Amino acid sequence: MTIATTMIIRLDIEKSVASFGDVASAIAAAGGDIVAIDVIRAGREITTRDITVNVQDAGNEEIIRVLSGMPGIKVVNVSDRTFLAHLGGKIEVSPKLPIKNREDLSQVYTPGVARVSMAIAEDKSKAYTLTMKRNTVAVVTDGTAVLGLGDIGPEAAMPVMEGKAMLFKQLAGIDAFPLCLDTKDPDEIVRIVKAVAPGFGGINLEDISSPRCFGIERRLAEALDIPVFHDDQHGTAVVVLAGLLNALKVVGKPFETARIVVAGIGAAGVSICNLLLSAGAGHVCAVDKEGILCKNVPYTNEEWQLLAESTNPEGITGLLGEAVKGADVFIGVAGAGILTVEHVQSMAPESIIFAMANPIPEIQPELAEPHVRVLATGRSDYPNQINNVLCFPGIFRGALDCRARTVNLEMKLAAAQAIAAVVQPDELNELYIIPSIFNEKVVEHVRAAVIEAAIRTGSARRIPPDFAGRQEK
Amino acid sequence: MTIATTMIIRLDIEKSVASFGDVASAIAAAGGDIVAIDVIRAGREITTRDITVNVQDAGNEEIIRVLSGMPGIKVVNVSDRTFLAHLGGKIEVSPKLPIKNREDLSQVYTPGVARVSMAIAEDKSKAYTLTMKRNTVAVVTDGTAVLGLGDIGPEAAMPVMEGKAMLFKQLAGIDAFPLCLDTKDPDEIVRIVKAVAPGFGGINLEDISSPRCFGIERRLAEALDIPVFHDDQHGTAVVVLAGLLNALKVVGKPFETARIVVAGIGAAGVSICNLLLSAGAGHVCAVDKEGILCKNVPYTNEEWQLLAESTNPEGITGLLGEAVKGADVFIGVAGAGILTVEHVQSMAPESIIFAMANPIPEIQPELAEPHVRVLATGRSDYPNQINNVLCFPGIFRGALDCRARTVNLEMKLAAAQAIAAVVQPDELNELYIIPSIFNEKVVEHVRAAVIEAAIRTGSARRIPPDFAGRQEK
Repeated sequence: MTIATTMIIRLDIEKSVASFGDVASAIAAAGGDIVAIDVIRAGREITTRDITVNVQDAGNEEIIRVLSGMPGIKVVNVSDRTFLAHLGGKIEVSPKLPIKNREDLSQVYTPGVARVSMAIAEDKSKAYTLTMKRNTVAVVTDGTAVLGLGDIGPEAAMPVMEGKAMLFKQLAGIDAFPLCLDTKDPDEIVRIVKAVAPGFGGINLEDISSPRCFGIERRLAEALDIPVFHDDQHGTAVVVLAGLLNALKVVGKPFETARIVVAGIGAAGVSICNLLLSAGAGHVCAVDKEGILCKNVPYTNEEWQLLAESTNPEGITGLLGEAVKGADVFIGVAGAGILTVEHVQSMAPESIIFAMANPIPEIQPELAEPHVRVLATGRSDYPNQINNVLCFPGIFRGALDCRARTVNLEMKLAAAQAIAAVVQPDELNELYIIPSIFNEKVVEHVRAAVIEAAIRTGSARRIPPDFAGRQEK
Repeated sequence: MTIATTMIIRLDIEKSVASFGDVASAIAAAGGDIVAIDVIRAGREITTRDITVNVQDAGNEEIIRVLSGMPGIKVVNVSDRTFLAHLGGKIEVSPKLPIKNREDLSQVYTPGVARVSMAIAEDKSKAYTLTMKRNTVAVVTDGTAVLGLGDIGPEAAMPVMEGKAMLFKQLAGIDAFPLCLDTKDPDEIVRIVKAVAPGFGGINLEDISSPRCFGIERRLAEALDIPVFHDDQHGTAVVVLAGLLNALKVVGKPFETARIVVAGIGAAGVSICNLLLSAGAGHVCAVDKEGILCKNVPYTNEEWQLLAESTNPEGITGLLGEAVKGADVFIGVAGAGILTVEHVQSMAPESIIFAMANPIPEIQPELAEPHVRVLATGRSDYPNQINNVLCFPGIFRGALDCRARTVNLEMKLAAAQAIAAVVQPDELNELYIIPSIFNEKVVEHVRAAVIEAAIRTGSARRIPPDFAGRQEK
């Protein structure tokens, strides 16, 4: 598995000692591919050039090592495209209208703003029309479970949350702002999010480690009258359910009786199990390193205790190998390489595998493919990418548009069905069970389904104009 | 004092009962001036029109009352321009670069972002280059002292904070984001701001009531390594000092010996006194409703206690009337109408009055004018507007650009001098002691002065490129 990066190397080349030809040869020998050269300064003795190089994997370090050792060459600076894209951050906060003169200023700031503030003071719900609240989501993390990187802290989590905010805006027109918290105390996190909530229409919890994430989300959802949604749990679960509904159609097995194994019972795994059960799955089996969750075994993790009671109806015991024997579906949110070819061969015919560990799946797709009917991963370089980006923009767009109090179970189920339905029956096949994240229909369909469910279940506090007609029908 | 507003009234007019002529006459009779008419729906029996009306002061209520009472007329909706400008909020969060394809996505989000996050995890200071931190300020309030409106709560404070964020961006290119907190507990506010700090390059505290604001700011400044600046205190103080330096030049009195009375010893008053003293003022007298602050009187308010020891060198006792007798300067941050013409007449010749209570000053400018040499207010409809907008954009621009750890005294003094110096000696006169907030030189000059002071005092962690040369000189 190789990830190509582009880097830009700034070199001082002492002309009497080294030539650009020497440099080019050295880069090629170290595995780099020169794609552009810019002369920055051409001095009498020294030339400064920016050399853009494509390189595979960690080859960049080798190239720099080689260049640094060459006589007459000085490596001034190395940047790569990814780092350059992050310079100064990826999002900005801008006025929606310009302040051109004193009259404008007196409308948007003192003294005019005082009347607007007083109107909200008299009726708090006016914050939804007169402030940014109605379109704004806080992306909150404590940096404890960032991507697959673990507890890297709030500063290091920022680039991920900024990226998420970009997607919120570009895909769903939502103003999302990162709040990366310098505390890991669940009580403190709950207090902070409750305190900042007045300015936000929704809370997206992100990359908070398990099992802390469960209590934090539950307490916030109870305390606040705006949607609270831990994307790592529910975003993943919604997209998995969407993909699984379609995958089971492909193989012609009913959802209710399919034998489903969920491997990895962290934030995502717990939520996947719960959503599958709520959607009517009759045979879910949850398995972690410690083995298959079983009734009558005491678990200190409360979520595991609850899951043990509602899963594994046949009381299977043992490790992953036992769980997958005869299973129709394997859903992995665990870790690289835990699923072997032997495991896959022991599954029922026409098996379905979602190997979603990132960046290295539970089994290499090339190894699994010959033995399964449908294969999905979390990666973009294989078919059927299970990606949260399919869920969170649309689910929040819908929740904000109808001023939902919560994102409840019905809204999540509706979102999953909407995502699944974007793949038309005549398009559906092994290699296309889930739409692309760039499919423009996704957000629109998820939004509509979520609003419909929110209105139906009483979570909505507002009927969006495009739903006013539908209600009367 | 009248504030003109524009409102838009949507009316259903039942044609058989009332005519538009009736409506127009009624609006004119109630003091409104129709400036535009838009037909929204022209039905057989009912026409819907949007009527744009200019109106003075609270005349809008009278117009609506009259229209609502007319037969055949239904007032569907009333909006005014100021409210319309606030619809859906005034700021937005946007990507700085678009995500056009999978390659873009993999750079700004997973998997590419992981390398950026790891780089910051290894060296936190890289958050300044690789995240939005370096250009981002939190505008934090608890909604307890919003404008002159008092404790109106976090939701109602939002429009003010959004307006502030607009000014930050438009005037200084800073990404500012409002955090309106649903708590009044100083300990909690301190904890919250400390926790959200990793994502921000600076903290602007706003509209937090006195005396809580003093402790909150002090504790945050001690705890954090980014600038913490309570604008109501220091922004006001900086601009007052700037104006006063110029006003004293106009009347030819030295700053050190001028007798200065500061009326109103809340957040702004305390900070004004302290900054004037730090700038070398020898005769400051602080007065509140309870009277003139005096040594040897015990005050429960710690800030008053400290001020009492450093002000009022002659030990004057009594109320405002005693304080202003023979004074050269009156600075009011108190309340409407507390200063009488008799008070003004008792001041020294060539007196200076800054009457900054908003929207109604300590004395009506028309009443004071015949008796003073220089008059300033907080309002835009008189000359010499003392407005924080002259300070906060430039002071934060400077602090962010040099990655200051604090906004220290020297930086505030430098900002005041820079603002004062924007008024050229040949321009300076009674009616022009302070630049307009739309003067483009202000931010640039304040920024430069603040950076210079931050470098000089060791608060800066970075020499901005345009200062690299200056340092060596």
